[in-house]
Amino acid sequence: MIIALAGGVGGARLAVGLAANLPPERLTFVVNTGDDFEHLGLSISPDLDTVMYTLAGVANPDTGWGRADETWSFMETLGALGGETWFRLGDRDLAVHVSRTTALAQGARLTEVTRALAGRLGVRHAILPMSNQAVRTFVHTDAGELAFQDYFVWRKCAPVVSAFRYAGAESARPPEALRAIMEGGEVEAVIVCPSNPYISIAPILAVREIRAWLQNRRFPVVAVSPIIGGDAVKGPAAKMMHELGLDVSAAGVARHYGGLVDGWVIDRRDARLATEIEALGLDALVTETLMTSRSRSIALARSVIDRAGALAEGARRRVRA
Amino acid sequence: MIIALAGGVGGARLAVGLAANLPPERLTFVVNTGDDFEHLGLSISPDLDTVMYTLAGVANPDTGWGRADETWSFMETLGALGGETWFRLGDRDLAVHVSRTTALAQGARLTEVTRALAGRLGVRHAILPMSNQAVRTFVHTDAGELAFQDYFVWRKCAPVVSAFRYAGAESARPPEALRAIMEGGEVEAVIVCPSNPYISIAPILAVREIRAWLQNRRFPVVAVSPIIGGDAVKGPAAKMMHELGLDVSAAGVARHYGGLVDGWVIDRRDARLATEIEALGLDALVTETLMTSRSRSIALARSVIDRAGALAEGARRRVRA
Repeated sequence: MIIALAGGVGGARLAVGLAANLPPERLTFVVNTGDDFEHLGLSISPDLDTVMYTLAGVANPDTGWGRADETWSFMETLGALGGETWFRLGDRDLAVHVSRTTALAQGARLTEVTRALAGRLGVRHAILPMSNQAVRTFVHTDAGELAFQDYFVWRKCAPVVSAFRYAGAESARPPEALRAIMEGGEVEAVIVCPSNPYISIAPILAVREIRAWLQNRRFPVVAVSPIIGGDAVKGPAAKMMHELGLDVSAAGVARHYGGLVDGWVIDRRDARLATEIEALGLDALVTETLMTSRSRSIALARSVIDRAGALAEGARRRVRA
Repeated sequence: MIIALAGGVGGARLAVGLAANLPPERLTFVVNTGDDFEHLGLSISPDLDTVMYTLAGVANPDTGWGRADETWSFMETLGALGGETWFRLGDRDLAVHVSRTTALAQGARLTEVTRALAGRLGVRHAILPMSNQAVRTFVHTDAGELAFQDYFVWRKCAPVVSAFRYAGAESARPPEALRAIMEGGEVEAVIVCPSNPYISIAPILAVREIRAWLQNRRFPVVAVSPIIGGDAVKGPAAKMMHELGLDVSAAGVARHYGGLVDGWVIDRRDARLATEIEALGLDALVTETLMTSRSRSIALARSVIDRAGALAEGARRRVRA
């Protein structure tokens, strides 16, 4: 079993490639819920939905969120009624939020709700929220501590970031299905998708049992750099690193993950960083990481899976030796 | 001030005519909330919305509920996700339900929510819910006691009706704005719109203070018959009367209202019933009551207002005599 940790659009793109390479019984996605929030009375899980929509082939390819073939009558009318329109909710997207909200209100857990929705959308691989308990990302900025969507959507990531807080993470538990995998000992590798390290992956790692499991791992963790050529493909990762005073590069992200990652996958245009990354004690793989098409996602996923396999084999050899 | 009691589509059609004849300071609508319900986590007020949409000129003219120029992406997607689609919610309509639900959850009263929504839609006349407290219509049938929407939409009014219950009505109070009018003594007349007597008007009359106010009135109450030529223009009124063993006619409805009505407006094709209605001690006005166009709604409203005025004048003369 391979576990892939994923957040928003970068994670979802690699997810497509991973799902094309591995059957459902060999691949499980664990998705960030730190940017979940309640809005207009609805329980919204942006990263779960982005991964789910992308795997289902119904994602909007242009925005990185929401659905293709979307209509906007609800939002248009809500605006005319004086309602809040800063968080865009399409008419089709809304059906997922209403379904989730009513199911949660009836006592279902987020894991069950996600499984049911993804199943209905034709997704074959398991998509697990990192926890059924609420974890909420807060961003410390020069405009004060902001709830994630306040920072991300309302303020368009404009405030200068100084730190993050993942409220609820310390008491949140991984869902049962993930604990069963963690305790089962069948995990071959964990793949960290090229999602934002601070707001997509860090909340997952902030869940105590997941962090401890990775710290005490007997399998390799391979991460794909979300920074290519000193910039993020999408989203505020590079801006954040700059504001945090960090080296805005694939090597900088590698240092951020520290001992939690064994293999680091970087883009060809960052080939010069391979030595620096290897000096950190990490395995470095240089390849084409920009997922501009489905076939590129599949090719990158294949490389990542193969490298994870090689690292696992290497570790086994060392144990035998 | 004229107060018009209204329910669904028949009520809304006369409402348009009344609003065209009287300025906002002389006309207030009091609308049934007995068919309100919670569905998909949303607070839905079908009759308030039908009156509001109709007065705003955005009602769907074909269905008698919902909005014109509606889209159905939400409902279509909800169906694909396995959600409940028996109660049709259009994408634009949904914006009203979400707005209402969030405002109520934030502590607003239904009266305030309705005023804000109607104002945004450009409605100039006051639309008041009969109460801010929940009153819920239940229908006793050969299939058991059914919640209203279960009977009305889910079962399409198929079960045979034997009685009605308006849960919560005895403890529900009229909203403050209506109490101020009731206590102000400025009411010239109450008009009962041609809405279903059992499921649209009866819940309003079941609110204790409203019933007592009408019983002790010093103004005329004029009702427009919802039954024309032995049938309802729309909805299950005739079917219900038949199942209740009543005379399915304008005279049968007049007997149902008993002493609460002074003037009774019937259609030309029921002219032969005028004598029977007058024998009940009621004033009978025979006119064209089928509101097939806006101009017919306005003409009927004019006749009703004039007759109410004549009855009020007659009462004043009797007091003076």
